[in-house]
Amino acid sequence: MSTVSRAVDPESDPRVKAVFDDIRATRQTDFINNMWRYLAFDPDLLEQTWRDVKRIMATPSALDPLTKEMLYIAVSVANGCGYCVHSHTAAARAKGMSPEQHAELMSIVGLAARTNHLATALQVPVDPVFDQG
Amino acid sequence: MSTVSRAVDPESDPRVKAVFDDIRATRQTDFINNMWRYLAFDPDLLEQTWRDVKRIMATPSALDPLTKEMLYIAVSVANGCGYCVHSHTAAARAKGMSPEQHAELMSIVGLAARTNHLATALQVPVDPVFDQG
Amino acid sequence: MSTVSRAVDPESDPRVKAVFDDIRATRQTDFINNMWRYLAFDPDLLEQTWRDVKRIMATPSALDPLTKEMLYIAVSVANGCGYCVHSHTAAARAKGMSPEQHAELMSIVGLAARTNHLATALQVPVDPVFDQG
Amino acid sequence: MSTVSRAVDPESDPRVKAVFDDIRATRQTDFINNMWRYLAFDPDLLEQTWRDVKRIMATPSALDPLTKEMLYIAVSVANGCGYCVHSHTAAARAKGMSPEQHAELMSIVGLAARTNHLATALQVPVDPVFDQG
Amino acid sequence: MSTVSRAVDPESDPRVKAVFDDIRATRQTDFINNMWRYLAFDPDLLEQTWRDVKRIMATPSALDPLTKEMLYIAVSVANGCGYCVHSHTAAARAKGMSPEQHAELMSIVGLAARTNHLATALQVPVDPVFDQG
Amino acid sequence: MSTVSRAVDPESDPRVKAVFDDIRATRQTDFINNMWRYLAFDPDLLEQTWRDVKRIMATPSALDPLTKEMLYIAVSVANGCGYCVHSHTAAARAKGMSPEQHAELMSIVGLAARTNHLATALQVPVDPVFDQG
Repeated sequence: MSTVSRAVDPESDPRVKAVFDDIRATRQTDFINNMWRYLAFDPDLLEQTWRDVKRIMATPSALDPLTKEMLYIAVSVANGCGYCVHSHTAAARAKGMSPEQHAELMSIVGLAARTNHLATALQVPVDPVFDQG
Repeated sequence: MSTVSRAVDPESDPRVKAVFDDIRATRQTDFINNMWRYLAFDPDLLEQTWRDVKRIMATPSALDPLTKEMLYIAVSVANGCGYCVHSHTAAARAKGMSPEQHAELMSIVGLAARTNHLATALQVPVDPVFDQG
Repeated sequence: MSTVSRAVDPESDPRVKAVFDDIRATRQTDFINNMWRYLAFDPDLLEQTWRDVKRIMATPSALDPLTKEMLYIAVSVANGCGYCVHSHTAAARAKGMSPEQHAELMSIVGLAARTNHLATALQVPVDPVFDQG
Repeated sequence: MSTVSRAVDPESDPRVKAVFDDIRATRQTDFINNMWRYLAFDPDLLEQTWRDVKRIMATPSALDPLTKEMLYIAVSVANGCGYCVHSHTAAARAKGMSPEQHAELMSIVGLAARTNHLATALQVPVDPVFDQG
Repeated sequence: MSTVSRAVDPESDPRVKAVFDDIRATRQTDFINNMWRYLAFDPDLLEQTWRDVKRIMATPSALDPLTKEMLYIAVSVANGCGYCVHSHTAAARAKGMSPEQHAELMSIVGLAARTNHLATALQVPVDPVFDQG
Repeated sequence: MSTVSRAVDPESDPRVKAVFDDIRATRQTDFINNMWRYLAFDPDLLEQTWRDVKRIMATPSALDPLTKEMLYIAVSVANGCGYCVHSHTAAARAKGMSPEQHAELMSIVGLAARTNHLATALQVPVDPVFDQG
């Protein structure tokens, strides 16, 4: 069930092929997951999305790759995106997430959700000391 | 503006005082932020919330303390909790988050939000290879 | 800070006056809270919103008035609506919510948020026995 | 998988039949989508929901029908409602949404999600000039 | 489709068995729903989650059991957790929720969502009289 | 109250100045709203965010500028971002949104929120005819 058609032969479009080739090279795998196959209905959208995912997630930076994947999972859970939770949990495992780290990620996500809702329910005023602005 | 009253002298209740003392000892500071001062309207709720925050966030574990704070921020942003974003950003800074790491956290949170919405908008089916179940 | 202007004399519009009069009569108070004063920028929107609030919240029904207000708070917290949390917490108090009931509502809202996030994070499949469909 | 039963013969209830007939007449099709078939478990809920959908979505107004459907999709994506994304994407297509417009809608939804999260993460104060209140 | 494996024989772990036995005893049924079977991948997470669910939901308190389940449903809907909506709707029925109460719960959840979005869209300022703080 | 400092003289950084100059030229105004002033704490984040906002929102495309702003508002409301609701409501007005169109936007946002929650509460299965996939 999806809202756009998955193309039969997406790589017949050279722009789509270029993105898929770059995904394969960057990730060093032949596997192209559905997100990219469905985004291929619009080459602009595909190119822009992959460009940013590659820049932010696949480029050495101030945070290590596993931390980045776990942050991605955390946001995806809170936004209720099942596809994203699945794909980034797989990616985090591929980058070394242990069952203990996974369970702890779950604990933090659940704890944060609980205190998020408590703070909203009580409408706790922000302590002046937290202001940077 | 809040939905419960902040007690004038919350530590006159020995259960509240015990939690506040433990917060001070655990965090090695005299500062008690508003979240705890407002939760003090109900000692049960205060005790249970602090017990879990302490266990999950202040106990050595499979994830380092800064990673845990950044995960907390990520969930809090996605849940739209302003108070939580403020308090955990301050906590992450206290645990060493650099401006570069903070900016990168922002990039990932924003990127995840974008692809979360795209995956939901397209209703992308989960790739069978991602299933662990 | 709001995105529409609060009218200087909203009741100069007879449709607005009729709604405000019905709010006063239904609630037996002269107080008109800001939600209605801002919705008054469009009499249609005001009339339709009040009609539904009155029908659902102020008409005797299968659920008692306090339960209905607490359900309203629960949804408002999860949707992150500060105004709504404030106004319906006040309404629940006016309908007899005790501090113990309020604290328990907080516990349930926080617990549900936590297990909501856990179920989403684990992508737990729905047990067939739960299907009514 | 659903939480209420889909009635075997919902139109044996004259109130349900009247709503279904009006849906068919308004939309000029015999197809009744599942949303209405499941809401039929409670004729009141069915009547009220259809009355508002018809009034807002199927009545000539200040916004054209396709714009209204795209707004509906945008809210549904942000609220994470898969059913709604599916049904309103189909409706938008039926009202003439082109693949280019669909792709652009996706871009805007994704961009808004990203800046929404950034503004929340930074807790940017509202510029005084934006206040209408 | 899930992100962790459901254990083949979870009760071979004595900590998991103890929790499952307590769930059976507390609920007076042999049925263990999937949430617990998947949480069993980490006995700590399982124990902590059940401990809080039992304390809050299965202990006599200021709110009656059916009201608590309906509050749980309300939060779960607003958080978009399909699994949770299913399991707690089943639990509410088991605790006596009538079709009329269910329909009314739907009405309130839908109404609250609508006014939540309106208040956010208008950015209605909180009336000073609502402040408890 | 914000989580990063607003720079005293952000345009002393030439990359920030270049973005601000482009914002002024694109929008034909000297006004730089707070979102950009706070994003300026990290020139990379500022450049990337503005580049995408300019490309998607300020470039002639398949959707007209006012429709794009209203879609932005719709997503921002559903994501609960007060800052974004304020800034894009102002932008929509600047692009000609009439009070009638604004009120209608509110109606649709509220209606969608209501049916989103109903569809989630009932867990309505997607009609096969809606599937494009």
